[in-house]
Amino acid sequence: MPVFASDMLSSVAYAPDEILLALSLTSLVALTVAPWIGVAVGAVILVIVACYRINVKAYPSGGGDYEVASKNLGPRAGLVVAAALLVDYVLTLAVSMTVFAAYITTAFPLLAPYRVPVAIIGILLITLAGLRGSRATPVLLAIPTYLFLGAVFLTMCVGLLRVGAGDIPQAETADYTVVHTGIQNEATLGLATVLIVLRAFSSGSVALAGVQTVATAVPAFKKPRGKNAGNTLLLSGLLAALMLTGLTYLASVTGIKYVDDPHLYLVRPDGSAVSAEYEQEPVLAQLAHAIFDNAPVMFYFVVLVAALVLIVAANTAVEGFPGLASRLARDGFLPRQLATKGDRLTFSNGILLLAFAAILLVIATRASATTLIQLYLVGVFASFVVGQAGMVLHWNKRLRLVIDPKARVRMHINRLVNGAGCIIASGVLLVVIVSKFLAGAWLAVAAMAGLYLVMGAIHRHYSRVARELAPEADGGSRTIPSNTHAIVVVNEINKPTLRALSYARVTRSSQLEAITVAVDEDSASALQRQWNDMSLPVPLTVLDSPYRELVRPLLAHVLAIRRRSPRDLVIVYIPQYIVGRWWEHILHNQVALKLRTRLLLVPNVVVVSVPWRLRSFSRQYGGDGPENDNPLYRQA
Amino acid sequence: MPVFASDMLSSVAYAPDEILLALSLTSLVALTVAPWIGVAVGAVILVIVACYRINVKAYPSGGGDYEVASKNLGPRAGLVVAAALLVDYVLTLAVSMTVFAAYITTAFPLLAPYRVPVAIIGILLITLAGLRGSRATPVLLAIPTYLFLGAVFLTMCVGLLRVGAGDIPQAETADYTVVHTGIQNEATLGLATVLIVLRAFSSGSVALAGVQTVATAVPAFKKPRGKNAGNTLLLSGLLAALMLTGLTYLASVTGIKYVDDPHLYLVRPDGSAVSAEYEQEPVLAQLAHAIFDNAPVMFYFVVLVAALVLIVAANTAVEGFPGLASRLARDGFLPRQLATKGDRLTFSNGILLLAFAAILLVIATRASATTLIQLYLVGVFASFVVGQAGMVLHWNKRLRLVIDPKARVRMHINRLVNGAGCIIASGVLLVVIVSKFLAGAWLAVAAMAGLYLVMGAIHRHYSRVARELAPEADGGSRTIPSNTHAIVVVNEINKPTLRALSYARVTRSSQLEAITVAVDEDSASALQRQWNDMSLPVPLTVLDSPYRELVRPLLAHVLAIRRRSPRDLVIVYIPQYIVGRWWEHILHNQVALKLRTRLLLVPNVVVVSVPWRLRSFSRQYGGDGPENDNPLYRQA
Repeated sequence: MPVFASDMLSSVAYAPDEILLALSLTSLVALTVAPWIGVAVGAVILVIVACYRINVKAYPSGGGDYEVASKNLGPRAGLVVAAALLVDYVLTLAVSMTVFAAYITTAFPLLAPYRVPVAIIGILLITLAGLRGSRATPVLLAIPTYLFLGAVFLTMCVGLLRVGAGDIPQAETADYTVVHTGIQNEATLGLATVLIVLRAFSSGSVALAGVQTVATAVPAFKKPRGKNAGNTLLLSGLLAALMLTGLTYLASVTGIKYVDDPHLYLVRPDGSAVSAEYEQEPVLAQLAHAIFDNAPVMFYFVVLVAALVLIVAANTAVEGFPGLASRLARDGFLPRQLATKGDRLTFSNGILLLAFAAILLVIATRASATTLIQLYLVGVFASFVVGQAGMVLHWNKRLRLVIDPKARVRMHINRLVNGAGCIIASGVLLVVIVSKFLAGAWLAVAAMAGLYLVMGAIHRHYSRVARELAPEADGGSRTIPSNTHAIVVVNEINKPTLRALSYARVTRSSQLEAITVAVDEDSASALQRQWNDMSLPVPLTVLDSPYRELVRPLLAHVLAIRRRSPRDLVIVYIPQYIVGRWWEHILHNQVALKLRTRLLLVPNVVVVSVPWRLRSFSRQYGGDGPENDNPLYRQA
Repeated sequence: MPVFASDMLSSVAYAPDEILLALSLTSLVALTVAPWIGVAVGAVILVIVACYRINVKAYPSGGGDYEVASKNLGPRAGLVVAAALLVDYVLTLAVSMTVFAAYITTAFPLLAPYRVPVAIIGILLITLAGLRGSRATPVLLAIPTYLFLGAVFLTMCVGLLRVGAGDIPQAETADYTVVHTGIQNEATLGLATVLIVLRAFSSGSVALAGVQTVATAVPAFKKPRGKNAGNTLLLSGLLAALMLTGLTYLASVTGIKYVDDPHLYLVRPDGSAVSAEYEQEPVLAQLAHAIFDNAPVMFYFVVLVAALVLIVAANTAVEGFPGLASRLARDGFLPRQLATKGDRLTFSNGILLLAFAAILLVIATRASATTLIQLYLVGVFASFVVGQAGMVLHWNKRLRLVIDPKARVRMHINRLVNGAGCIIASGVLLVVIVSKFLAGAWLAVAAMAGLYLVMGAIHRHYSRVARELAPEADGGSRTIPSNTHAIVVVNEINKPTLRALSYARVTRSSQLEAITVAVDEDSASALQRQWNDMSLPVPLTVLDSPYRELVRPLLAHVLAIRRRSPRDLVIVYIPQYIVGRWWEHILHNQVALKLRTRLLLVPNVVVVSVPWRLRSFSRQYGGDGPENDNPLYRQA
């Protein structure tokens, strides 16, 4: 549970900040509204969690919204969700590490000027760990989540007890005033306030980002999977809602101020602006400061544990990406090689792209969590909307099939819940896109559109190729060549060549010849003499090469065979060296590679690579022992 | 003739400059010595040319000094020459294009501040032409050389006629004074003057750089090759000596001043320093200015023709490099794939390295021809010295074998000429290294040493591998596997798979099975159903893959076969798509490639690539027509 929940729970480390920040834009409602927004977001969390409990039970294969949308709304809707989810992976990484950097600089104010580099280094380290495939054990990843839960609840309990005892802690920023350059007009105030409250609400909804993580991780749960995943969702949803409400309440009680740009909007008690060095602490850190005002060690504990849980959350993005990518690859939306989730090395390029995009975002937004979260919301809620709409259709379909009244009642309820989730998610999405389109949400929309187009193009390509390659009904593509003509390419007489000859002989072709190209006349005649001396049982053909070429004479020879007997299969044996060090690739196999590439272009020709392990390889990997001990196979 | 001679003749465009420049360091001898140095260099040219006429007759295979040194002094000496020649190719390119830039900026003074970019662009264009393999026809390349010869002789004749008629033309710089910050001490003056004269002499010897080009181009001459090449050498040597002497004489008569840094050492007639914008023109350009003082069009003609011939000279470096590289590759000093001179594409990397090194040198010296020429001299004369020493040994050996007195006399004369060449070349080399070691000659020496070491290491690697791969005398490496076990890797049932199956069947293995890895259980069982429906005549094995891997289950299966029957040969057939566009590589073959790489590590396994040309390939290259029309084969 804790691993998949870390994404959702860690959002508590930044969701309250976004609520306060949005509210700081209006003076009227100020902080009295904040706890109610916390409650509203908590309620939304519970609704959405209820929706996804239904989802994971109905679709326990871990496809999440992608599967729901594909199956009920068609592949195009599925592709929209897929694009949204890919964007989300990038943003989970970017947001988590940006907030991570904020906590780190809170704990170590000396690092404050280096927030962007800290976030980037964080992304790089997590990517590196993901690339090396050194998955930390679930237990290890669970510790930060539990610690974080403990730290937040301890803060909340102590805070609530102190409030109950009348000893209300005051935040450092309690006496500061928020000044407004924005809304002055009384007439628009009402509408603006509503909009701001809505924005605060939708910003707070970022706490829901982690729901998807659980929904796609269903197959990793113990059986019964759907039920266990549903329970995890419920539990972490309840916890997140509770923590968010509690923290927002405490933030308003302790008078915490949190604004977009403290140097513009924050004024100190004596009326002076805050100093240039002033760095705003995250709400959770300010709370820990205020509540544990006589135990600074607790402040550091809370802050560092928050940073830790954000690493775990960012890690879920890197760990989770191969799963989605392999599902998309199996459906033909991404390159096919990504389909095998187990071959981790294959995903290196994908994970590097993920990290690269996240780093670009961090640099472009100068590690501004607020901006990134607006992008994040677009992706998260776009997939919610499509997914829940899909679920409504799902129940519609099922209702048409089922007649058992009890089951029908349950389905009606489910449809109601999913419908409510869809409407709420649409509302949040609308607010974010309308209020933040120019401020960055367009980027998320553009990225989704771009991914949608590229994945659609890949799918069309694969479909076209599949149609092209479909076997003909009359079995026309099963004709068997009448004869085989084997050719062994010889450059010099050595063990690899002799092995290629033996292997060629054992396959018993209709014809077998060894061929050498006389790039250098002297060495060609020396080779022929040696060939005769060894009385090798295969005839050697020497091809002239007036222009000192190797590939063209061989190709011409093969084409001549093809012309003589167009229905024959030509099998070309090429020795290939298996080397142990990277630079040996420069010294070996280059000619073989080129020859192979060219020969494969000729119809009815196959190329057989006959490997020979050089001693440098065996020394490096111990290839002479039992093969299973070879690290290369173990890694396979 | 003109193509190979362009290198040597073009040196007339910068050799006089170097003589005047070196002499400008001493006031005593000034320009009166210049023509005599021109005569001396001319004499040396004739001696060296005589040496190389002997060389090309004795070794007409085009190996040049490399062959002479390898055969007579052993492989180490050959390697020294090889390193020197490789450095020379870089410097031919760098020097020619630097001087080219000087002529271009003389013709277009507006470009004067961009001398370095002009030289770099020149290098890039010549490299590009070399990479595209668009060899200009010899006739086209001959035109600039003839034009240059015509232009220089016209300049000389008109100049000499005017001198004869008493109408001595005066150069623009004739009234300028050269000031000296250097030698003041009367005592050291004598020795210093000797040194400077020697340096002027050795700098002028750069005119000899092109000799090597002719010596290595022998096989391109008409038969009798040695004789024709010798005649070309003699003719171009005579022409170069004549032009150099004439130009140097005219330069001293017209009072041309040429110094290292005109802003430091040149003073105008009124005693003021030259302006900051003053750009020194090459000697040939100044001569053209002075001699054709009432026909400026001739000045432009001479200057542009000189620029043109320098392009041809630089081109010989790019064109000639593959020849040397292929010879070195055949001897095992460079990666083997370079051995086939005809497959031009192979040399792309080599030519790019050549251009890269030349560009670095141009940037490092800020396009200073004088500095580059000192480096150039090191390489050129190092190979002269070793080559001529080899020739002396060659005649010693021959003298021991031959008794015919007439032939012996000829050999004695030859030995004398080669010995003289060796001594003169050693002298020049010594002067350059001693006088210019810190000023840049160390770089040429270091580059030669580095190349020597790398090529030695490559040679040792190949020798070691050759020993490792030498067939055993008892024929132990000729054992033939007892049985063959063929495996066809199936991902889906399509035409490429069916083709792989047909091909596997036609080779009649002892056992044949199709294998699919069940990465996805649904599609695996669908595949099996389809397999049965089509009643394919080969059994299909489905391998489980609990972790959604593809490579490991297959490897495990192959290893299990190996364990059961270790003397069998396992033949794995993998379909491979031949695509038409670069990006299709991302979407196809990645899994096949990975599988192939891994399988080749297993002993007694060969991998057969069964190609399938996608329609995108045929559309691009028209593969369905007669194969010879396919541009890919034509290029082969």
